[in-house]
This record gives sequence, C-alpha cells and structure tokens, in this order.
Amino acid sequence: MTAAFEEARRAYDAKTKPRGSLGRLEELGCRIAGIRGFLPQRLEAVVVVAAGDHGVAVEGVSAYPAEVTRQMVANFAAGGAAINVLARRAGARLIVVDAGVREPFDHELVRPVRIGPGTANIAAGPAMSSAQAERAVLAGRELVDELEVVDVVGIGEMGIGNTTSASALTAAILGVDPELVCGRGTGLDDEGLARKIATVRQALAANAGSDPLAALGGFEIAFLAGVVLACEQRRIAVLLDGFITAAAGLAATCVSPSASAVMIASHRSPEPGHALVLERLGLEPLLDLGLRLGEGSGAALALPLLHASIAILDEMATFADAGVTDAGR
Amino acid sequence: MTAAFEEARRAYDAKTKPRGSLGRLEELGCRIAGIRGFLPQRLEAVVVVAAGDHGVAVEGVSAYPAEVTRQMVANFAAGGAAINVLARRAGARLIVVDAGVREPFDHELVRPVRIGPGTANIAAGPAMSSAQAERAVLAGRELVDELEVVDVVGIGEMGIGNTTSASALTAAILGVDPELVCGRGTGLDDEGLARKIATVRQALAANAGSDPLAALGGFEIAFLAGVVLACEQRRIAVLLDGFITAAAGLAATCVSPSASAVMIASHRSPEPGHALVLERLGLEPLLDLGLRLGEGSGAALALPLLHASIAILDEMATFADAGVTDAGR
Repeated sequence: MTAAFEEARRAYDAKTKPRGSLGRLEELGCRIAGIRGFLPQRLEAVVVVAAGDHGVAVEGVSAYPAEVTRQMVANFAAGGAAINVLARRAGARLIVVDAGVREPFDHELVRPVRIGPGTANIAAGPAMSSAQAERAVLAGRELVDELEVVDVVGIGEMGIGNTTSASALTAAILGVDPELVCGRGTGLDDEGLARKIATVRQALAANAGSDPLAALGGFEIAFLAGVVLACEQRRIAVLLDGFITAAAGLAATCVSPSASAVMIASHRSPEPGHALVLERLGLEPLLDLGLRLGEGSGAALALPLLHASIAILDEMATFADAGVTDAGR
Repeated sequence: MTAAFEEARRAYDAKTKPRGSLGRLEELGCRIAGIRGFLPQRLEAVVVVAAGDHGVAVEGVSAYPAEVTRQMVANFAAGGAAINVLARRAGARLIVVDAGVREPFDHELVRPVRIGPGTANIAAGPAMSSAQAERAVLAGRELVDELEVVDVVGIGEMGIGNTTSASALTAAILGVDPELVCGRGTGLDDEGLARKIATVRQALAANAGSDPLAALGGFEIAFLAGVVLACEQRRIAVLLDGFITAAAGLAATCVSPSASAVMIASHRSPEPGHALVLERLGLEPLLDLGLRLGEGSGAALALPLLHASIAILDEMATFADAGVTDAGR
C-alpha cells in the first residue's frame, strides 16, 4: 500500500498550502490512496446497514422492546430514519440488509439474508451455530462482491440488544472485564447497566472456549465482519460507525489480522468498549460528537471529510500552477 | 432565542431515534434554530475570506514571505486554493475580500475594500488608526447587509504574519502572557517561535493602553469583526474557522458582549491561543483535526455537519409517522 500512500503525500505537499496544514485530512487522503492502491479522483461510497435481532434482549438489556428492530427496518425502507437522511446528504447509496430480524419485513429495498429469526440468548448458550456464522460472513462477502464501482463502504447496524452482544464479543476477544466494556447503549439507567454487565458475565461463562463471533455475536455483526473481509480483499476502504461495527471489524481481524489496514474510524461514541476496540485496531476516530445512534449515522456524517480529502488532491492548484512562493515547509 | 431552540429540541425528540442519540449534532441544530429564531428547512451558507497584509511580517515571524498574501488572493480568484475546493464541496458561495493587501490585485471576484496597503508594524506602534479600524469594521458590516438569503456565514482569512497579530490581540484582550498564546503558525521552527513571542511582547509594550483591535489587529481581522457584529444584528450564524477568525470574534465581543451567541466554532487548531479564545467565547469546537491552514478551510469542513443537523430536523420521520415504538428516552 506504500506507493500510492507516498504518491498522495507528495501530491498534498505540492498544493498551495503549508506542508501538512490540513492535518488529519491529509493523513486521511493518504490512507485512502494507500488502501485503494491509487489516487482516486472521486470517491464512490455505499453505506450498508445490516439488521438482526438478539435473543439476549429478553434479559432487559435495552431501553427499547425487540420489535423496534423490525419497525426500524421498515423505517429504513420508507426513507424516514436518520441514516436515510444522512446517507442522502453525503451522496452515498444505502443498502439495507435483513441479516436475521425476528419476523421478516418484505420490501424491495431490503436485502433478505435472514440467517435466522434472531439469535439465541447468549446468556444461556451460543448465539448461533458455527454454520450460521459462516453463512452470515459469506453473505456479507457476497454483497461486497456484487458491488461494482465502489471506493468506500460505510457500515452500520440495527438490532435491539446488540450493544450487549458487541460488549460480550469485545470482552471475549480483548480479554477484558465486562465492566470496562459495557455502556448505556441507547439509554439504559443505572439498574439497566448493572443488569447488562451481569448478563455479559453470564454470556462469557456460558460460552467459554467457543468461537467468539458465533457464540456471542449477532447475525448483523457476522454479516458485517464478512463485508469487512471482502473489502480487505478488494482494497475498498471500510468506514466504521460506532461500537457495534467496530466489534464486527475486530471479529474480522480474528480471521484476517491485516483487515484493520482498510478501516477508517468515523467517530468515537460514549460506549466505553468502543474506545478499547479502536485502540486495538490502531484507529483514531475523525469525529467525537457523542453519537450513540448507530445505523451507520456516524459513518455518513464523516463521509464528507473523506470526499474533501480527495477533492483537495484532485482539484487544488500546485505552487507551480498558481505561481505561489513555496517556503518548502 | 429560547423559543426556536426549544422547538428544535422537541422536534429532535419526536424523531425515530433515542432521545439525544445524535449528541452534539442535535445541540448544533438547536443552536442554529435559536440563532435564526426559527427552524430553517435548509441552510444557505456563504464563506467570506478576507485578506490583509501585516507590517509585523518584517520581524520574520512567518515561514512565508509577505508577497504570498497577494499571491494567495490571486489563487482564490482563480479557484485553486483549498477554500475554493472545500467551499464548493460544501455548497457554499465564496466571497473573497481584499481588506488591505500591500499591492492591489484587481479581479472581478475580489471585493476591493483596501483600508490600506497593509498595516504598520505593531512591534513599533499601532497597526492602524482608529479611523481605519472603524472603516474596516463598517466595511464588514456592509458586506453582510448586502447579503440576501443567508443563514450561516463562515469566516476565513489570509495574511502573512496574522497569527502574530491575532496572538497580540488575544494576549491584550484576555490579559495573558504571549508565551501562552503564540504557536508555530503555518510552520515556524523553535527560533522563529521565540522571535514571535518576543515580537508580541514588544507589540504589547509599544501599544499599552490603546484600543486592541486598532493597535494590534489587521485590516482583515477588523473587517471580520464587522462581519460578526452585523451577523449578530441579523441573527445569522457565524461559523468561525481557526485562531485568527476566533480573535476577530473575540474583538467583536469587546464591542457587543453578546456576539458570541451567534458563533459556532468549526474546529480547534494547534495554535495555543485558539483554545484560550474559544474558552472565553464559551464555544466547544466541532472538529479537532490538527488544521492550521486558515482561509476558512475548517469552517468549510464543518459546514456539512450544520447541514446534516438541519436535514435531520426537516427530513426524518417521527415516531408517530413511522409507527415505531417510542421508549420515551
């Protein structure tokens, strides 16, 4: 990936601005060039939102009832959710995937992957079988393989209870205590948070020694791990959203340790586990706005920065073009 | 400003997402509504870049020679600078102002305000006369008065030596030591930084007891202070760029202490004085990307977040619209 990275570095340095004065925007453009293996003139972006239900929701670990997963898939299909608005504003195509919602929502805009009608309760045993996990990962890979021109895939998720699954997955892979990983998700009170931590402990005990992704993940999480793995193979940049998508990225690195090289972290959420995962992946987030919605919303909000980093490379004048004195620093 | 702010708060709470889950994006939209006095459906944005030369450049306080100010005005007019690219991407109209560059650059796309051919050297005496400062502020006000439909004005600047002027202005207004304010600007080494600090000390001594804006500012800084004051009167949001525009905002609050109520901080730069000014203005920046270019580049990079905050209000479905269960938190 070094040649295109270095080419981008030199191109930024020739532009009419002090060296490095666009800070992390320049690092971002170099990273994108390095991932793609060339200097793109513009970025074609897609946001993939995968939805799945979680058996662990019966433990009362979310502020919302489980039927909201399906209701939100309907909302995505109708164009009324935050990610619809934000993806549209960012000029990204939105792909909605039912990776395994409890009850199907048939709609031409929803890709019916449906590994199962929600996972089993991880507090009592594995979320899914190994075969289901493999199918979910494969389905994620297949989606990416079908995409034609694409430079960046933003990933997002919807699934009531899925910060609990992501917390368990993170605690298992990183080997850290659930108390350091669990947060309030979309709105738990103190009692709910204590219940969530206890549930994650129970899940880790019930699934000790199993493959973390199958045992503790979710259908949407496994699907997104497959998306990441295929993007690595095709040298497509993966723009992570919040904690759950980062956990999917982390799970992908258990299969392919170099997968983090194609990832870009859009933001840092208030979920404590998110910072831990980003640190392990070696990623510094672009935004820090207290976002905790999911759906790929943070990825869509960061996308204009990616576009800007490439527009600077493509459209700005060089010192030579513009007749501006170059101080060389 | 409270009624529209509260109306926006309620509107966000009715949308299909957990309360407050878009974090600072929601605060931003509420702030914009509060400033405008109503809920805008979309934002009309303008970026104003004012350029001026600084007599203090002879002290060797910049990595670039003074002629670069005029060269960059030519670059703005030709469309090749970073702000041209970034304003275009953000859908904002760009207005370039020659507030007082040493030698004129006549071009139909440059507004010739030209209070003088660069300021005098602040290390030896006042940058400009009181009459010149008043004319510059008035010219900034006049520009805003001419704008028709506009919700947000991003402000930017160009002027070799102007981080030194902004540092002196900030040190004088905040009453802090120059060492705490001065940074490396667009690329000073250690020796250059020491010279800059010494120059600011000299400027403060040479201008003790004088009006800070006239004595220590620049034509572009005074012009932008006028832009801010007119935006406050018209309830237009002012999107600050980096340290120099923040210093212009600070100078505006010396005239109208409530002017900070219409300001939004786009980013925090590595200049130490920038954080001090933002703290005094009570502003928390949206981005922190190590930007140190100026020209309004940070404002243009933050603009998509402002647009997104309003698009969420205007386009997202409510719980009632979408039939999604509202957990009420």
